[in-house]
Amino acid sequence: MSYVLGHNQYGKAEVHVVRVFRESRESRHDIVDYNVSVALSGDFADAHITGDQANVLTTDACKNTVNAFAKEAGDAVRAPESFAVALADHFVDDVPQVASATITVEAFPWQRIGDQPHAFRRVDDYVRTVTVRRGNDGDRPASVVSGLTGYVVLKTTDSEFHGFYQDRYTTLQPTNDRVMATAVTARWAHESNENADWNGAFDTVVDALTTAFADSYSYALQQTIWEMGQKALDAAPGVAEIRLSCPNKHHFVIDLSPFDLSNDNEVFHADDRPYGLIEATVKRSADVDMSAAYDPGQAW
Amino acid sequence: MSYVLGHNQYGKAEVHVVRVFRESRESRHDIVDYNVSVALSGDFADAHITGDQANVLTTDACKNTVNAFAKEAGDAVRAPESFAVALADHFVDDVPQVASATITVEAFPWQRIGDQPHAFRRVDDYVRTVTVRRGNDGDRPASVVSGLTGYVVLKTTDSEFHGFYQDRYTTLQPTNDRVMATAVTARWAHESNENADWNGAFDTVVDALTTAFADSYSYALQQTIWEMGQKALDAAPGVAEIRLSCPNKHHFVIDLSPFDLSNDNEVFHADDRPYGLIEATVKRSADVDMSAAYDPGQAW
Amino acid sequence: MSYVLGHNQYGKAEVHVVRVFRESRESRHDIVDYNVSVALSGDFADAHITGDQANVLTTDACKNTVNAFAKEAGDAVRAPESFAVALADHFVDDVPQVASATITVEAFPWQRIGDQPHAFRRVDDYVRTVTVRRGNDGDRPASVVSGLTGYVVLKTTDSEFHGFYQDRYTTLQPTNDRVMATAVTARWAHESNENADWNGAFDTVVDALTTAFADSYSYALQQTIWEMGQKALDAAPGVAEIRLSCPNKHHFVIDLSPFDLSNDNEVFHADDRPYGLIEATVKRSADVDMSAAYDPGQAW
Amino acid sequence: MSYVLGHNQYGKAEVHVVRVFRESRESRHDIVDYNVSVALSGDFADAHITGDQANVLTTDACKNTVNAFAKEAGDAVRAPESFAVALADHFVDDVPQVASATITVEAFPWQRIGDQPHAFRRVDDYVRTVTVRRGNDGDRPASVVSGLTGYVVLKTTDSEFHGFYQDRYTTLQPTNDRVMATAVTARWAHESNENADWNGAFDTVVDALTTAFADSYSYALQQTIWEMGQKALDAAPGVAEIRLSCPNKHHFVIDLSPFDLSNDNEVFHADDRPYGLIEATVKRSADVDMSAAYDPGQAW
Repeated sequence: MSYVLGHNQYGKAEVHVVRVFRESRESRHDIVDYNVSVALSGDFADAHITGDQANVLTTDACKNTVNAFAKEAGDAVRAPESFAVALADHFVDDVPQVASATITVEAFPWQRIGDQPHAFRRVDDYVRTVTVRRGNDGDRPASVVSGLTGYVVLKTTDSEFHGFYQDRYTTLQPTNDRVMATAVTARWAHESNENADWNGAFDTVVDALTTAFADSYSYALQQTIWEMGQKALDAAPGVAEIRLSCPNKHHFVIDLSPFDLSNDNEVFHADDRPYGLIEATVKRSADVDMSAAYDPGQAW
Repeated sequence: MSYVLGHNQYGKAEVHVVRVFRESRESRHDIVDYNVSVALSGDFADAHITGDQANVLTTDACKNTVNAFAKEAGDAVRAPESFAVALADHFVDDVPQVASATITVEAFPWQRIGDQPHAFRRVDDYVRTVTVRRGNDGDRPASVVSGLTGYVVLKTTDSEFHGFYQDRYTTLQPTNDRVMATAVTARWAHESNENADWNGAFDTVVDALTTAFADSYSYALQQTIWEMGQKALDAAPGVAEIRLSCPNKHHFVIDLSPFDLSNDNEVFHADDRPYGLIEATVKRSADVDMSAAYDPGQAW
Repeated sequence: MSYVLGHNQYGKAEVHVVRVFRESRESRHDIVDYNVSVALSGDFADAHITGDQANVLTTDACKNTVNAFAKEAGDAVRAPESFAVALADHFVDDVPQVASATITVEAFPWQRIGDQPHAFRRVDDYVRTVTVRRGNDGDRPASVVSGLTGYVVLKTTDSEFHGFYQDRYTTLQPTNDRVMATAVTARWAHESNENADWNGAFDTVVDALTTAFADSYSYALQQTIWEMGQKALDAAPGVAEIRLSCPNKHHFVIDLSPFDLSNDNEVFHADDRPYGLIEATVKRSADVDMSAAYDPGQAW
Repeated sequence: MSYVLGHNQYGKAEVHVVRVFRESRESRHDIVDYNVSVALSGDFADAHITGDQANVLTTDACKNTVNAFAKEAGDAVRAPESFAVALADHFVDDVPQVASATITVEAFPWQRIGDQPHAFRRVDDYVRTVTVRRGNDGDRPASVVSGLTGYVVLKTTDSEFHGFYQDRYTTLQPTNDRVMATAVTARWAHESNENADWNGAFDTVVDALTTAFADSYSYALQQTIWEMGQKALDAAPGVAEIRLSCPNKHHFVIDLSPFDLSNDNEVFHADDRPYGLIEATVKRSADVDMSAAYDPGQAW
């Protein structure tokens, strides 16, 4: 039978490159730590159908490019957004058979130890993420989505949940005081791929999300997500929309009455699975459509 | 400022339910082992914007529904596809404010120990996956995507890679004999959501993929994927398309010459990262468009 | 202040080496897949205290040795036990400052696809493990501990649990019919480091463990472990003792009565944490003491 | 045949309990987050051999005890060391058939968000660990080992490695400037199980380890570990010994010369496996022997 090759892409995933910025061995050093993935689409059908690799830029060359750009891309290397834009532009502009490129970066935060010029510690509160796509039209500029994942926050009160829909399978009791915790994944799409201070812009959004979570009184995780999204858009004028994916990390009040102990929201079982999963997009206006900016493999 | 709530969904993720089929304690038992996630969309804006939960079916009720259906859905429980269809139909048909439902299942394979009626062992060669979506139009039938993930296969020869594109960053040497290994993720979309033997249909596709991998001579992983996709469509007439995502698990020939040892493709370093990642769709015909059937969070 | 350097060891961990046995490109190939760790002790205090590395065999050389031995150790490479013995003997016999060596191996099982001479699939039911130690006395032969980890088995009935001790914190209800499941980690110490068929001997013990689990009626996981250990010693005459570590992977009967459904041990919640953890040693006789044969980091 | 039951223990593992300290809903709250495992030994042979459970404190009761103690153990709950001592004392003192108890705790750090009274964020730089053992002699006091794991630190220079031993398998080139990084696991044994400020004592050791890593010039990871251990003992007078297990997280200088780029220790490949693993004990004096204080499953 005769079948058809549909959408296809390829590249090198998880190129883990660390760049040290140093003028000399003795100078004060800086560091960035990126895990970079490259996915290319274009005129690659022959590689599948006839086995002819003449058009295939090897995934090994993709890796080499990431590593070389960590040196030659200059100050663009200092933020994952600008580093990814440089890479996407290169693949689309310089490799003729590439029609589109998706660059994703996990950036691992490090913190200087005291004021030591050469020593650092990993700060694993979250992983910073970037998705840059340069689309099928070579003249269209690359899009930029910033984000983070694994950012765990919790409030010990100021959270209610009641008045919900009842069906045959509803047994949950309403509550006006509970622990609410989540591990935030957020991605926000920028209107432009240029920014003089991507790192500062990232911190601004994280601060807005954190403050919104901490300060808002909650009637549901849904509502808290909406608050977080709004505060992020308030704080970051160039952000067109933000997508939040928040597992409800359930903390169940343990019944201590068999042991003649009270438990006034003091002792909780932190459960693993299952978990509620609440996901929402907050957009600056109704006509925003940034869907092409996201990696299709990262819906939220 | 006034912002807009964009796409949103919620539900319970990773409800890990095990169903034992037994007529009596002494009878021969069967078992299925599912990790089920439910995501619902519909008229849920108030939960975000005003905090009013009147429309919200709790995620706890979603969990209860999965567990109850493991008993009351009858023979549909015996295959993850039919179980997921039953759940999707329920949420869309029976909960008025739900406009669409996505049910994803990880099914963990178990094998009977010998002919023992009550004892089983996990077979972890892969995890079977199912995505069922009942779309925004309540009359449209649920779509079904079957799949597997983590299926690791390797060939020790019959694999070449040469004749590829050369750019400034290309240093890879061509080869006419190499180890090729991958951990297959595959998802295939069915034309219908009815099948008298989902479990047999799954095995048919796995056999086709396995045989295609083992028997095809390879000029690139791209070509092998194309072979695997074609053979799957050959074997499974009701499958409209198949998507394959195959990391190239690199096995590098180790240079043993410093130790005066030859290495004629005998000793390899199995590397972790980075890895090539090759992804492609094989469709039965050019006008197949099953994109709405996939979970947006699972691009491949 | 003046402190003292206590026990110390070092080496290379997780050298992931794959060996293909092939007479020619066309011949029938075999494969082994090992993740090897080397830990050395001896006269290495200067490396710590004065920074003088003159005695230090580099961890890079440890890696090179593992890779080279995958070629030059001949048939010993075909079983992880004999491969590890060859490595331990080398480090103690050939590197003067090494007083003792611990070699641990994870061996990943592969299965030939059909009768294809060059194609294989990973079989992930368990990982096979080996610990070989050559002790501080250079003349003492290396000890060998074989094992497996992550072997998940389940029985749907033939398991009771009652008559247990009651204290203030006991609320569990007794049962005479339950699901019992575990992920077996087992390690068994051999009386000799020579065996003409290590691979066959491993299969014999796995079969004994499996059959004992499947066929024994259980009054507690403790009792089942005791049965498994005894059957392993019955089957493998050269095994001095076996240590079993078995998490009780709890399957809780779900209360479906709120939905007017019965649940006669049919629908279970497979919980993640916490879990019972039962560990025991079964010895061939009271005077067996194999404790020096185990990696101190692997108590069970 | 007649076999012998050797060492055995059992209990509940990974009881994940979160305790909120609150005087009222409105007051300023504090939080601790513990993952607690209990292992008991004693007169439990019958549970294995005859199936008689009369002596068995159920693992479910172990879980209940952990949860109840999170309420009733008072201020002892505020530090994982004192919480674990309270649990170990209870099991040995109050359950007659228990001869010894090992309590291990993973404590997950949280940080208050700003000065918000009820909102917190996880700080995942490391997990704090505690092992408390109350031995076979009921009158012997419980021993306490504090620790941390997963603490990742890196220095961009001030690290050399040369002058090492050369054998047939040595190919590594010496260097006088390299990146050195590790993920510290440390455990330190206290002379007493009483401390008015366990949390402060923990911070003191972490600061000492961090400063020693950052400020010491290194001729090998071995030497740095020795420095870290000494500084920890300097800072914490009640600590008898400290054990450090430090994987050498290799950062390899990437050869950029094929692309006509220099690389003066600027661009590195952060490799996953294999890795050097350096482990050492630093003791306050030669006659210190704390080996009984450690969990046998945690050699370092």
